[in-house]
Amino acid sequence: MATVNPPRGMRDFLPADKARRERVLSVIRERYRAHGFDEIETPVMEEYGRLHAGMGGDNEKLAFNIMKRGISADALATTTDPADLADLGLRYDLTVPLSRFYASHRGELSGVFRAVQIAPVWRAERPQKGRYRQFMQCDIDIMGDASSRAEAELISATLDVLDALGLSGASVRINDRRALDALLDVFGFPEAERPGVLITIDKLDKIGPTGVAAELRERGAADAAVGALEAFLAGLEAPAGSFGPEQIRALLPEGIPGEIVDHLVGVGEAVSAARGDAPLVFDPFLVRGMGYYTGTIFEIAHPDVTYSLGGGGRYDGMIGRFLGQDVPAVGFSIGFERIVDLVAIAEAEGARAVVLVHDKDVPVAELLAHKARLVSDGARVRLERRPRNLKGVLERAQADGYTSFATVAAGQHDLDFKPLR
Amino acid sequence: MATVNPPRGMRDFLPADKARRERVLSVIRERYRAHGFDEIETPVMEEYGRLHAGMGGDNEKLAFNIMKRGISADALATTTDPADLADLGLRYDLTVPLSRFYASHRGELSGVFRAVQIAPVWRAERPQKGRYRQFMQCDIDIMGDASSRAEAELISATLDVLDALGLSGASVRINDRRALDALLDVFGFPEAERPGVLITIDKLDKIGPTGVAAELRERGAADAAVGALEAFLAGLEAPAGSFGPEQIRALLPEGIPGEIVDHLVGVGEAVSAARGDAPLVFDPFLVRGMGYYTGTIFEIAHPDVTYSLGGGGRYDGMIGRFLGQDVPAVGFSIGFERIVDLVAIAEAEGARAVVLVHDKDVPVAELLAHKARLVSDGARVRLERRPRNLKGVLERAQADGYTSFATVAAGQHDLDFKPLR
Repeated sequence: MATVNPPRGMRDFLPADKARRERVLSVIRERYRAHGFDEIETPVMEEYGRLHAGMGGDNEKLAFNIMKRGISADALATTTDPADLADLGLRYDLTVPLSRFYASHRGELSGVFRAVQIAPVWRAERPQKGRYRQFMQCDIDIMGDASSRAEAELISATLDVLDALGLSGASVRINDRRALDALLDVFGFPEAERPGVLITIDKLDKIGPTGVAAELRERGAADAAVGALEAFLAGLEAPAGSFGPEQIRALLPEGIPGEIVDHLVGVGEAVSAARGDAPLVFDPFLVRGMGYYTGTIFEIAHPDVTYSLGGGGRYDGMIGRFLGQDVPAVGFSIGFERIVDLVAIAEAEGARAVVLVHDKDVPVAELLAHKARLVSDGARVRLERRPRNLKGVLERAQADGYTSFATVAAGQHDLDFKPLR
Repeated sequence: MATVNPPRGMRDFLPADKARRERVLSVIRERYRAHGFDEIETPVMEEYGRLHAGMGGDNEKLAFNIMKRGISADALATTTDPADLADLGLRYDLTVPLSRFYASHRGELSGVFRAVQIAPVWRAERPQKGRYRQFMQCDIDIMGDASSRAEAELISATLDVLDALGLSGASVRINDRRALDALLDVFGFPEAERPGVLITIDKLDKIGPTGVAAELRERGAADAAVGALEAFLAGLEAPAGSFGPEQIRALLPEGIPGEIVDHLVGVGEAVSAARGDAPLVFDPFLVRGMGYYTGTIFEIAHPDVTYSLGGGGRYDGMIGRFLGQDVPAVGFSIGFERIVDLVAIAEAEGARAVVLVHDKDVPVAELLAHKARLVSDGARVRLERRPRNLKGVLERAQADGYTSFATVAAGQHDLDFKPLR
C-alpha cells in the first residue's frame, strides 16, 4: 500500500488547526455579511472551456483537469490532444466562477450585487513552503456599480475585517491600470511592449529603480522610454499630506486623464467618511498580476509583514465575456492562508468544554448519562478511558480547546472538575 | 460562448439558499461538537489508487478522475488504459479519506478519536430529481472503540442534532451484519450467494415478502433456503415492549450468537440512559448497501418522510487496509441534502439587517458614513440606489434576511427605519 499522506502539496487539518481556521473564517464571514455582502456558492468545477478562455492568466496552466467519464479504449486511441479527454476542471480562482454565476443569475440578484465567497481553489503549483495546491480564498466583489463607492465599500469592509482579526494598522496601496498605461504612454513605451514592461515594473519593490532599468534594457525596451522612466523615478518624492488630488498628481507626470484622479480621490473620501481615516497610499507603480484588470487596483500592506495580505481591482470587461453585455465589477481577495497564521482568535468566552476520564468498569449507560446531562447543560464533552499516560491525553484535550476534566468511577454521582492547564 | 449554467448535475446557491444551508450546517456542527466530535478536514482529492481499492463499493465507478498534469502527446499515444492518465480523483465519500487520515495521523489523535466531517463529495451519477453530482455530507465517526458505547454515542448525538433541527420523533432502525449473515446461514443460503441475496432482501420494504421470494427464485437461489426465509417472514411479528433482549430474540431464529444480541442491547441501554428513551427498532432485514460493514448497521427513520434521513455502521476492517493493523471504527452519516429541505432555522433573534435606499445625488462619502455607523452599531447593512421597482428590491432584501429599510437623501442626518414585510 502506498503512502497514507494526503496528495502532494495538500494538507489534512487536525482538530486544533481546523477549529482555529473555522474561527478566523467565521469572523471574516460575519464582518463581510455586516457590510452587506451576501454569501454565495458555486460548484468546485466549471466547464473546461470556460476555465481556459484566457481569463485566468497564468493560473489556467495550473488547473487540475477532470477526465470525461467512460472514455473508451477506442476513443483514447484516436485522441491526440490530452485536453480533448477533459470536460471539466477545478476552479483556480473565485473570479471566473463568480462571473459565470452572475451571468447565469443576474435577474435574481440585486441591481448592485455584493457577493462574498469563502471557498477552496486548486492550483497545480510546484509545492513549496507556504504554497499549497488546495487553499482557501475569501473574495468580496461588487457587480453593477461603476462608481468609486464600490471600491470604497470593498476597502472599508476589508479594513474592518482586519481590525476584527487584530490586524489593525493595515494600509492600502492603490493605483489605476489606466494611469499605469497612460504613464507608459507618456514615457514612450510602445503599446506592444507594455505587458512585458509591466512584469518588470512589478519588481520595483524588490530590485529598485536601477534593477528595473537594467532589466528593461535587457528585455530590449526602447532606450529613450527607459531613460524617461529612470528620470521620473529619480525625481519621485512622496508628497506630504493625506490622500488627495495634490498627493496623487504629485506622483504622476502631466497628461494623466483627470477622471482617473477624481475616481481615486472619491475612493479616499468615502473610505475616510466610513472610518474616520483613510489609510490609502497612492502607488503609481503598483501593477497586480492579472491581465483582466481595467481600472482601480489595490493591495493590502501591513507593518508586521513584508508580503501583501490581499488585493484586487476592477475588471469591468469580464462579465461581458459571459453575458454579452458589459457589467462593471470590482473585487477584493484577502490572503486567508497568510492571515490565518498571523492571528489568534480565542474560543468564545464561557464555552465549557470538559473531559470525563473513566475507568474501564464504568457501565456505558452511566457514562452516557453523565455526558448527556453535561451536554444538555451547554457543555462540550469528550469521554476518555483512563490511559496509561493521563498527562498526554489531557494536554491533547487542552490543545483541542477543552478547559476542565473530571474522573468518573462506577456508581459515582457527583463529578469533581479540575481545570486543565 | 457555451451555456452559463453550472456543470451538469451541480448547483449554484444564491444568497437566501446559501444562508439557509449555512444556518443548518452550523446547528449540526455545534451539536456534534458539544457531543465531543472534533472537526477535521482532508483535501477534496485522494490518490487514484486509493479511491479504486474496492472500499467505495459502487461509488468507485462514479468517481470524477483528475488527469495527470503535463501529459505529452507521446505519452498519450502509448497509453491504452484511460485510468493510466489519472493520478488523483475527487472523493466520493468521507469514509475512505477519514480512514486514510486516521492511518496518517494516528499518533497525534486521541486513543478513541471522534471525528466530524462536514464537506462536499462528488459522484458522477446520472442527474435526476434530488440527486446531485456535488453534495454535502455530514459524517461522524468513532475510531478505536469496539464497545457498544461507540454506537450509543453516535446515535445519541445524531438524535440530538435532529431534535435541534426541529426533527424530533426520529427513530433508528438497527441490525448487525453478522446477525444478517447468521440468518442467511440458518436459512441455508450458501456463502457465495449471499451478496446477491442481500441486494434482494434490501428491497423488502418496497416489494414485500412475496416480491423478495419471487426475485430470489428468479436469481436462482436455493429453493429450500427461499422457502425457509418465506416461512420465517410469514411468522414474524413485532414483539411488544421496548428494545431489549426478548424483543431482539423474538425477531431472530435460534442460533444467532449471543454476543451480537448483547452488543445491540448495550447500545439500547446506553441511548436510553442518555436520552431517557431509546427510539431504536430492531430490524433483522436491514441491509445497508456498503460492503465494508462488519457489525452494527443503522438507519434513521422519521414519521414525516418515507426515505431514510441517514445511516451508518461498523467498518472494523477498513483502517487496517491503510494501517496494516485493524482499528475498530463506526460511523454515522446524516443526509444533509434531504434534511436541509425539511427544516427552517430562523436567523438569530435580534439580528438587525437594514437596507438604505438612496437617491443618485447622495454623495458617496455621506452614504458610507451612514453605513459605517450602522455596521459599528452591530447591524448588517445593504445599500440600494432607489430603483424604479422599489417593491421588488425590498422583497428580495427580505428574502435575503433584511428586516427594515430607510430612505436616505443628501444631507440627511437621522434615518427613519420602517420594517420590511
